[in-house]
Amino acid sequence: MRTFRLVIACPDRVGIVAKVSNFLASHNGWITEASHHSDNLSGWFFMRHEIRADTLPFDLDGFREAFTPIAEEFSMDWRITDSAQKKRVVLMASRESHCLADLLHRWHSDELDCDIACVISNHQDLRSMVEWHDIPYYHVPVDPKDKEPAFAEVSRLVGHHQADVVVLARYMQILPPQLCREYAHQVINIHHSFLPSFVGAKPYHQASLRGVKLIGATCHYVTEELDAGPIIEQDVVRVSHRDSIENMVRFGRDVEKMVLARGLRAHLEDRVLVHDNKTVVFG
Amino acid sequence: MRTFRLVIACPDRVGIVAKVSNFLASHNGWITEASHHSDNLSGWFFMRHEIRADTLPFDLDGFREAFTPIAEEFSMDWRITDSAQKKRVVLMASRESHCLADLLHRWHSDELDCDIACVISNHQDLRSMVEWHDIPYYHVPVDPKDKEPAFAEVSRLVGHHQADVVVLARYMQILPPQLCREYAHQVINIHHSFLPSFVGAKPYHQASLRGVKLIGATCHYVTEELDAGPIIEQDVVRVSHRDSIENMVRFGRDVEKMVLARGLRAHLEDRVLVHDNKTVVFG
Amino acid sequence: MRTFRLVIACPDRVGIVAKVSNFLASHNGWITEASHHSDNLSGWFFMRHEIRADTLPFDLDGFREAFTPIAEEFSMDWRITDSAQKKRVVLMASRESHCLADLLHRWHSDELDCDIACVISNHQDLRSMVEWHDIPYYHVPVDPKDKEPAFAEVSRLVGHHQADVVVLARYMQILPPQLCREYAHQVINIHHSFLPSFVGAKPYHQASLRGVKLIGATCHYVTEELDAGPIIEQDVVRVSHRDSIENMVRFGRDVEKMVLARGLRAHLEDRVLVHDNKTVVFG
Amino acid sequence: MRTFRLVIACPDRVGIVAKVSNFLASHNGWITEASHHSDNLSGWFFMRHEIRADTLPFDLDGFREAFTPIAEEFSMDWRITDSAQKKRVVLMASRESHCLADLLHRWHSDELDCDIACVISNHQDLRSMVEWHDIPYYHVPVDPKDKEPAFAEVSRLVGHHQADVVVLARYMQILPPQLCREYAHQVINIHHSFLPSFVGAKPYHQASLRGVKLIGATCHYVTEELDAGPIIEQDVVRVSHRDSIENMVRFGRDVEKMVLARGLRAHLEDRVLVHDNKTVVFG
Repeated sequence: MRTFRLVIACPDRVGIVAKVSNFLASHNGWITEASHHSDNLSGWFFMRHEIRADTLPFDLDGFREAFTPIAEEFSMDWRITDSAQKKRVVLMASRESHCLADLLHRWHSDELDCDIACVISNHQDLRSMVEWHDIPYYHVPVDPKDKEPAFAEVSRLVGHHQADVVVLARYMQILPPQLCREYAHQVINIHHSFLPSFVGAKPYHQASLRGVKLIGATCHYVTEELDAGPIIEQDVVRVSHRDSIENMVRFGRDVEKMVLARGLRAHLEDRVLVHDNKTVVFG
Repeated sequence: MRTFRLVIACPDRVGIVAKVSNFLASHNGWITEASHHSDNLSGWFFMRHEIRADTLPFDLDGFREAFTPIAEEFSMDWRITDSAQKKRVVLMASRESHCLADLLHRWHSDELDCDIACVISNHQDLRSMVEWHDIPYYHVPVDPKDKEPAFAEVSRLVGHHQADVVVLARYMQILPPQLCREYAHQVINIHHSFLPSFVGAKPYHQASLRGVKLIGATCHYVTEELDAGPIIEQDVVRVSHRDSIENMVRFGRDVEKMVLARGLRAHLEDRVLVHDNKTVVFG
Repeated sequence: MRTFRLVIACPDRVGIVAKVSNFLASHNGWITEASHHSDNLSGWFFMRHEIRADTLPFDLDGFREAFTPIAEEFSMDWRITDSAQKKRVVLMASRESHCLADLLHRWHSDELDCDIACVISNHQDLRSMVEWHDIPYYHVPVDPKDKEPAFAEVSRLVGHHQADVVVLARYMQILPPQLCREYAHQVINIHHSFLPSFVGAKPYHQASLRGVKLIGATCHYVTEELDAGPIIEQDVVRVSHRDSIENMVRFGRDVEKMVLARGLRAHLEDRVLVHDNKTVVFG
Repeated sequence: MRTFRLVIACPDRVGIVAKVSNFLASHNGWITEASHHSDNLSGWFFMRHEIRADTLPFDLDGFREAFTPIAEEFSMDWRITDSAQKKRVVLMASRESHCLADLLHRWHSDELDCDIACVISNHQDLRSMVEWHDIPYYHVPVDPKDKEPAFAEVSRLVGHHQADVVVLARYMQILPPQLCREYAHQVINIHHSFLPSFVGAKPYHQASLRGVKLIGATCHYVTEELDAGPIIEQDVVRVSHRDSIENMVRFGRDVEKMVLARGLRAHLEDRVLVHDNKTVVFG
């Protein structure tokens, strides 16, 4: 069922829900899902509606025009999207295949509602798997002594493919600040620890050294500060003294791919709102 | 903060949210929490609002009078409650203390927002623990050959104490059908299995015999059919071949008390709506 | 590291561990992993050792010959396997790809230590995915009116490929009793519910109807009685009133593939011992 | 059933298990539980046996004398304990009752196998609850400007009561280094975060600020470095944008008490071995 998704963040006050739901009802819009959140700490209000597109008299532009006065009255950050306009995703990976294979399979079996524009990797290892899915594969090697040309090419490819979302599916390279800024809240990373524990490299080694009893993974938006962006989703799995680092890595792979898939899905369905480096994720 | 809780179930159609939120906004009601659910299978719509009581010009009766026309227009099942009017809870227990002790401690430390009217038990074992909390304790022994007098007395006590909720905290007796009917959706039981597995007696023995790898507990409303009422909350815990039945019972106690406490809390906060022997639980 | 795995079940009595560990020590065997379990209910003892193959003076036959007197003294059910001799796995699937794709990827990325002899399916849908992995694909359609020829062919293929394990990766057909008997404790199924709840067809529909708050999956050995064989592994995921049956199916897929992969891995590593329709799974 | 618990850590080499199990078998010892762990990183071997006391010809001293030659041969760190000699526990708490009430209830219902020697608190709030259990309560106020006299008194009380274990059940004060050293691996703390995240004060506030999607608790041995001692047990619970800090604190209480109870139980049953600031916990 095709829906419009209306996503709003604004300072909280009386009458927002009434105004918005009146607007929708007056145009006969059938709401299939509605979520609200009042954040007491920040004083902000967050709202998301899914409305059956066939019950509204608008296309997206028409909706935008009609809704703008309300948005202005309440100083809303807002967007309206159409479930029929699939987001264009660029996947980036390195050598490890588990997250990439998982996302490709979910897409291939129609579980992830998006177009995968291409895969960019600094290695050749995953080319065949990607091309089996009829998806373009770009090999952009990164010279550790001069990364700039590689990232210029990455930037060009992302732009060329008109990406709405970039997913770092265990890409293992730190994106340059400019790219982070340009695609703020559009670049999704999976970090292989339960942040804020074990920022940076080799988190499973850090976890083993500290002797933790659970290991985890964190899906977050990429910001200029490493592993410090807004968290979308996290999960953990139990480990014990029996588990070598190799086992932790293996268990971790399963958590990573599940957490990334859930985070990406939430993003694709416009369920994630960012405010003050934190997320509201409407389930 | 004192709130009114408006809880609504009705056939789904366009305009319900608009009507209700308009009503609230027109009376200047500040919504602190709003939850909606459209059930596609049944075609019903469920809604719960918490509104700051001090922003509304009504008491409960005034609210009821003003809202009735809307409720009738949309054929609503609805209720409005006041967070300041604590629900009166009657706890029933047998010999095992873990659920009772857990609920009493949560109440004593102001975590459970209710009045505990009394505890009824078919044994004397837990009297001292209850009386330490300054709560009346009634010993109503149940004669296995003639249970009727005991349940007549239970019924009388529940009525006398004007109970809004009866909690079977491992009471281990099956309530007579009439009591189930009279207090429909007001009697909460904790069953020590992950229903619908292992209905009836000795579920941990059944679980051990079947060799399951997880055991669980289920909080549900009591209906005339044993362990078949609407489920409010469930959880599980991992077990292995190493775990004897005694261990399962021990692990199970922790799950039981957590699940019961969460289920009761949801009920006390008017978060549970029942429809077609299933629940909507607004988190 | 190549290891021998010594797996033993026998009636419990004093001296078993001493005898076995003496035997190993006297031949200079370096134990890398040792697990024991005394089952009080049945009075049986279960034991598994991994021993570095390069520290022992035996091949498998030599080990068998040397160990047989001990095995006879203690009436042991026992086996010794060599981690270097990969088990031969036949995968069976229908149309749904998630479990098959997951197992193939784990095998392809060297996470599952086995040979995949072939895939047998009653449909053609998954042929391309399987053949990309260079694994033979057999299409054996099942005529609902006369299933016997299909299962005769399945039986022939399983035999021809000298399968050590048959994995029903959402095969959706009930194997004939004779095949179950012939490959007792060698056929692994994934059932898409938390058994013993929701045996048989359409478990997610059953779960939705009952209004459970968790759904699950169960990996078990196939026996003649439907969904009643020894359970190897189970897990669950939380659902709520918001989740349609479609969502349950989607969440369920993730649980199914994780549970099946963990169960199969335990089997491949000779960690699963069956006794009285229950399993000991040494972690 | 009364058991002896033999707990061993030593450098790994061939023949340890054989020697120990021979020793036990030669004295007719019936092993009810045996656990082994070879740590590849450190090259150490860890072992724990429970042996039915009535099958051995020794008391503890006799066992020690007989076993000493083996212990010396393999350079073992080892201990033998008798399940009939209950450990003496001193509980320390501040104002919050949840962990203390939970431990007292488990002890009172015979779930925790120990003697509770006394409760020490820097406040009077929990006196009545403790004294209902017939346990001595010592009020030792801590002067923030001069903590030394208080800790001298704490130290005296712990010594006077011949404590085997000190449990900081949300004590909220940092023990002085000397006390940490004197009772190394005998002082158990519950920290209200998933360490190493959110060390120190107000971890739930830190968690809210960072926007994590899971919060946790950590049970660990106290060392001189704050919240950095060997971790015994951890767990987490899911939170969302809906959860205020107050809610996190409430959810956290349940995790804290469960994690502390599990950690303490493992310690009381001699299941925890410490090596290199990490623990082996035999389940």
